[in-house]
Amino acid sequence: MTPETRPDLSAHIARGLSDLRNLVALQSVSAQGRMLLETAGAVAGLLRAEGFTVREYPGQVAPVLVAEAGSGPFTLLIYNHYDVQPEDPAGLWESPPFTLTERDGRLYGRGASDDKGEFVSRLAGLRALRERHGGQLPLRVKWLLEGEEEVGSPSLEAFVQEHAAELRADGVWWEFGSVTPEGQPILYAGLKGIVCLELRCRVAASDLHSSTGAVVDNPLFRLSRAVASLRDEEGNVTIPGFHEDIRAENQADLDAISALPGHGEALLRGYEVTRPLGTPGDYHRRMNLMPVVNINGFHGGYGGQGSKTVLPAEGMVKIDFRLVPDQQPDRVVQLLRAHLDAQGLDDIEIVELESHQHPARSDLNSPFVKVAARVAREVHGHEPLLHPSSGGSGPMYPFMQHVGAPVVAMGIGNPTGRVHAPNENILRRDFENGVRFALEFMDALGQG
Amino acid sequence: MTPETRPDLSAHIARGLSDLRNLVALQSVSAQGRMLLETAGAVAGLLRAEGFTVREYPGQVAPVLVAEAGSGPFTLLIYNHYDVQPEDPAGLWESPPFTLTERDGRLYGRGASDDKGEFVSRLAGLRALRERHGGQLPLRVKWLLEGEEEVGSPSLEAFVQEHAAELRADGVWWEFGSVTPEGQPILYAGLKGIVCLELRCRVAASDLHSSTGAVVDNPLFRLSRAVASLRDEEGNVTIPGFHEDIRAENQADLDAISALPGHGEALLRGYEVTRPLGTPGDYHRRMNLMPVVNINGFHGGYGGQGSKTVLPAEGMVKIDFRLVPDQQPDRVVQLLRAHLDAQGLDDIEIVELESHQHPARSDLNSPFVKVAARVAREVHGHEPLLHPSSGGSGPMYPFMQHVGAPVVAMGIGNPTGRVHAPNENILRRDFENGVRFALEFMDALGQG
Repeated sequence: MTPETRPDLSAHIARGLSDLRNLVALQSVSAQGRMLLETAGAVAGLLRAEGFTVREYPGQVAPVLVAEAGSGPFTLLIYNHYDVQPEDPAGLWESPPFTLTERDGRLYGRGASDDKGEFVSRLAGLRALRERHGGQLPLRVKWLLEGEEEVGSPSLEAFVQEHAAELRADGVWWEFGSVTPEGQPILYAGLKGIVCLELRCRVAASDLHSSTGAVVDNPLFRLSRAVASLRDEEGNVTIPGFHEDIRAENQADLDAISALPGHGEALLRGYEVTRPLGTPGDYHRRMNLMPVVNINGFHGGYGGQGSKTVLPAEGMVKIDFRLVPDQQPDRVVQLLRAHLDAQGLDDIEIVELESHQHPARSDLNSPFVKVAARVAREVHGHEPLLHPSSGGSGPMYPFMQHVGAPVVAMGIGNPTGRVHAPNENILRRDFENGVRFALEFMDALGQG
Repeated sequence: MTPETRPDLSAHIARGLSDLRNLVALQSVSAQGRMLLETAGAVAGLLRAEGFTVREYPGQVAPVLVAEAGSGPFTLLIYNHYDVQPEDPAGLWESPPFTLTERDGRLYGRGASDDKGEFVSRLAGLRALRERHGGQLPLRVKWLLEGEEEVGSPSLEAFVQEHAAELRADGVWWEFGSVTPEGQPILYAGLKGIVCLELRCRVAASDLHSSTGAVVDNPLFRLSRAVASLRDEEGNVTIPGFHEDIRAENQADLDAISALPGHGEALLRGYEVTRPLGTPGDYHRRMNLMPVVNINGFHGGYGGQGSKTVLPAEGMVKIDFRLVPDQQPDRVVQLLRAHLDAQGLDDIEIVELESHQHPARSDLNSPFVKVAARVAREVHGHEPLLHPSSGGSGPMYPFMQHVGAPVVAMGIGNPTGRVHAPNENILRRDFENGVRFALEFMDALGQG
């Protein structure tokens, strides 16, 4: 679709931005339990106005909404969330965080991108689709919205499992996605799994003078030994058994990776990375397909100026594992425990920090993913960057497992969108194309 | 000497306590530059009143005093310091920190033990010695007092080297020492050396999302690998070349160690140590004779509640090495650098945190050490615990190197003396015996 043949969506775009302004004004910060019921109500109201039936279920922090409308051969499940991150540090915002503000082609506000902007761009596209089809939707749309995503989706996995029949669909449209500065849409067909752990070691009731290091073991040495044993110099995890469950790489994934441009120059140069891992040619394979262990934090003993000759009583390390299909989070924890024990590090305690997430990756050959890529190419006028998997994680697995459908992430974010940070923003261009994509994606799915 | 034959020292003890009260009242906190000149002046006045000539030299923070008096075949150099640690946290003191206060057989106050109590107990013994010898001292006494010990003695090594001739002596009496709760005097004939370092690693200009751990190395992993390579499970340093300069163990040291009672039960039980190093029978050998590497602190990345999936840009580790004769601090730093480089950890920066200290250990067979042990036995009525070396460190080496004499540490501290902490204290019993020891020790030395 060339720009000349684009439908005039200006009214739908304007109404979408008005919806976004209203939703951004609702301070639905899940971490602080702020305005979650009001925001759920506003979202339900917007959906009911488009003919959706909306059911509201209790979550641990905020209600889960399941909306349904339309009919047709294809059933699409859309996943979004209506909660946002806290606005802290509020002083760093250049305009009020809960007032959608346009400057230089960008729209600023908490949730403008993550995830209210995603939701309303899709809703605006759906309105245009209804208009195109005389008030009807040519497909079945199920819309799941939660209000707990920014606190780790504590209710989601059980909810999706319990409501599997109700949520059954032919494809799942994930809650995020992004567009490069040059306008290339970025699609993800999977997410890595994640396991977040803390390792703790204690050798005494209180800190000792460091001269006693001759006769008392050091918890920071023991934790260092544990950490050093987790991977090799190239970043390969060295826990026995860790790689056993990994699904064989498939040609479609490898082909998609070969088609991705560059070798991560934006990331590596932007952050002035002095120690990249792997070879340049390996960048995308590693980001998409390789499991990783990360040290998020290491703390114990003295950290101030100069020296303090102390033998700390205790220390702790925070780590995360990024998993790929078909690794199992619980099995990774068991393998780590056995690995530490086998090295005599059985005194190191493993604390599981939050609910794990399984890895999930859709088949790039599935028609659903292919339609998404084709429509993205037409709408954005650029070849899409199709990633078999994001390097990041999220609760995608329960959808694939229980809904039984491929998942694709495609949306309106941008690399400098400052999601979770002050001055969160979207490009107006990306929002407008997001409305167009929603319209044409759902229309194409409805055509079977 | 049985209690019945002890000379009546009550007047000298009372005067010593009065001196101590006056000195504790002078808030000579070197870290804060408080009242150092006044305190140096008060100390010089006390010494001049006993016939000492006193020379005052500039230090970096406070004057160095060198006093001399008496004559005889033996020259004793006494080393003390007149500065103290800060009183913080002041709110935890049960009586005012700068008011010497007696409760339940103990005397509380900042400097009561470290080091004003040591100084005045020796001075009171010297007064008794002069009285016994008709106003004369039967030996040459040189007294070096600095006011910078609590900030790492930055001037001392160069001063001792420069004034070697002026300080020449037949034996050096170290500034501290202690007595067990049961009344056994503890003597040290050496101190370990020390090297304090910081290891730093940085991989990027700012923190990254932990998903980038697939393509960016982790500074906390690299530091963990460095730390894990420093020693083995038993605490033996594994840096190539580290043990090359260590002097062979001698029989006198091993005999002294065999004579030490117990296996560190007070320390290990008192601190509820769950991971002792070495075997129980090895406790004293390790504390006295074994070089050690210690991890004092390890910090980088997230340390709060729960998880944060961050790849930290940087991290740092603080370590100290405790050295034994004849290891050289500078050589240890060179060996560490080579060891890290050999493992591909050449990006880890080594920062030297403060002036190093060489290890120092006197010959236990020297007459000076033997006299100290004999007099300690007689005065305290208990077999002394003679340690070839403390596990701790201090600037003893320049004395042995430039003054050319054996050194022994014997004093009035106690294991619950809370040195450097609130409620610093000495036992009145230990102070009284300290005066007696000073008298009899110097008298014995004067007899040749």
